[in-house]
Amino acid sequence: MSAHGFVPDVDVQDVTDPDDPRLDDFRDLNSVDRRPDLPSGKGLVIAEGVLVVQRMLVSRFTPRALLGTDRRLAELKEDLAGCGAPYYRASADVMAKAVGFHLNRGVLAAASRVAEPSVAEVVIGARCIAVLEGVNDHENLGSIFRNAAGLGVDAVVFGSGCADPLYRRAVRVSMGHALLVPYARAANWPADLGLLKECGFRLLAMTPHGDALTLPEAMDVVRDQPIALLVGAEGPGLTAAALRISDGRVRIPMSRGTDSLNVATAAALAFYERARLGP
Amino acid sequence: MSAHGFVPDVDVQDVTDPDDPRLDDFRDLNSVDRRPDLPSGKGLVIAEGVLVVQRMLVSRFTPRALLGTDRRLAELKEDLAGCGAPYYRASADVMAKAVGFHLNRGVLAAASRVAEPSVAEVVIGARCIAVLEGVNDHENLGSIFRNAAGLGVDAVVFGSGCADPLYRRAVRVSMGHALLVPYARAANWPADLGLLKECGFRLLAMTPHGDALTLPEAMDVVRDQPIALLVGAEGPGLTAAALRISDGRVRIPMSRGTDSLNVATAAALAFYERARLGP
Repeated sequence: MSAHGFVPDVDVQDVTDPDDPRLDDFRDLNSVDRRPDLPSGKGLVIAEGVLVVQRMLVSRFTPRALLGTDRRLAELKEDLAGCGAPYYRASADVMAKAVGFHLNRGVLAAASRVAEPSVAEVVIGARCIAVLEGVNDHENLGSIFRNAAGLGVDAVVFGSGCADPLYRRAVRVSMGHALLVPYARAANWPADLGLLKECGFRLLAMTPHGDALTLPEAMDVVRDQPIALLVGAEGPGLTAAALRISDGRVRIPMSRGTDSLNVATAAALAFYERARLGP
Repeated sequence: MSAHGFVPDVDVQDVTDPDDPRLDDFRDLNSVDRRPDLPSGKGLVIAEGVLVVQRMLVSRFTPRALLGTDRRLAELKEDLAGCGAPYYRASADVMAKAVGFHLNRGVLAAASRVAEPSVAEVVIGARCIAVLEGVNDHENLGSIFRNAAGLGVDAVVFGSGCADPLYRRAVRVSMGHALLVPYARAANWPADLGLLKECGFRLLAMTPHGDALTLPEAMDVVRDQPIALLVGAEGPGLTAAALRISDGRVRIPMSRGTDSLNVATAAALAFYERARLGP
């Protein structure tokens, strides 16, 4: 509650017809998901649920419209102060018909995309960044953003073959951190890895190979230098070109007879080892 | 390839009718999934995909039947030597009609359940065990088994409110490790935590609370004593009763302004910290 219990007005508009054109930003989300980069041709970013909508509201993505139940409006009212976007208040049934499936999170926000920074811009001042190559699974990508936010990673750089971090499912699994953790897409891959080196980053390539240093060994070598952790997809791993340009190879010490961990889990262990002894 | 290129025979039976009663163990898996403990009333354990079927074949679960394409048969032929169960060879189309959805992994194995050990039996000789309470999400449960296998956890103990580790999706996400890592269900909860103490385990309860020791601090305290890592569900966390009986509380050092990590990721970080400096 703000001072004196005053809650600024939110532009609440009741919608009872699922075909109402005001809901077009939220229509048929599952089929729109086939082209996640272009929902309805508008390139929208969709936040689902109270927590993720709250994170969108403090991110660089400004909601242009929200759709939700009365209950979620009550939960979000303070956060929506000054937002300006209309809140289309509807029943769960009307929402389900417009969206195309039942939403158990009860609220959605839609925002336009914004211009993305360059790799050089996004790594300014960073001490630890994650660099992803071929991570084309939206859930893994979302998990990596969640882990990055929790474990002290300053920015994420996308090499070739990565999924869209602003896709609805990636945003949801990231708990909204895909909207908050700075990221950039490499314009030239793997050449931009050379740019990271010029910016002072030590490039550590994650691999299951036995001849790599273990995470504790590698972090002891780089000490407090800025690092870029290179992570490839489960299965194929990093390309030979990315491995070649790296300063060192690093592995997670694993039990005998097991294969690799999930890519987001492996990344979390590396982030953790880097952050382990504090800033 | 075994000696002299000799490959023992597999009982291959071609099936062209999706309604063939020989496929009953694999029928309508998605609707059967609503009662994962009782697929078709038979209590079967289902392995999906070549890697998971291979792990089932070396586990305590003996396949009673397999269903798969000719291509997967070729990949599994050596593993199936001595298995004895029939391999129902079918087209992807016949499989999809019997199973009720398209299987992109191309092979399934079904095994009966086996008697489960007690908590006291499963922790004999263990140095690090995971104890789960309220982890009712099958994917998280599967991920925890995968992480346990890779990061040196000897056994898993289930307290109250956990999902079934032998449910098809849990087995799949675990990469088959749910069939290999020993586990037991607590007969009395949380009283069985006292039993673990009597067996010499130090009970470390994971919590996001700021007054807990960090993972490195806690592992430094317990050194090489056997430990039980107690993990609760995302959101509610451990119950007060479980926290009370624990020897200590432990937290992951997190970045400011972030909430908890995914439960399987948090568990992986604890397993990693325990295993970090080797056996």
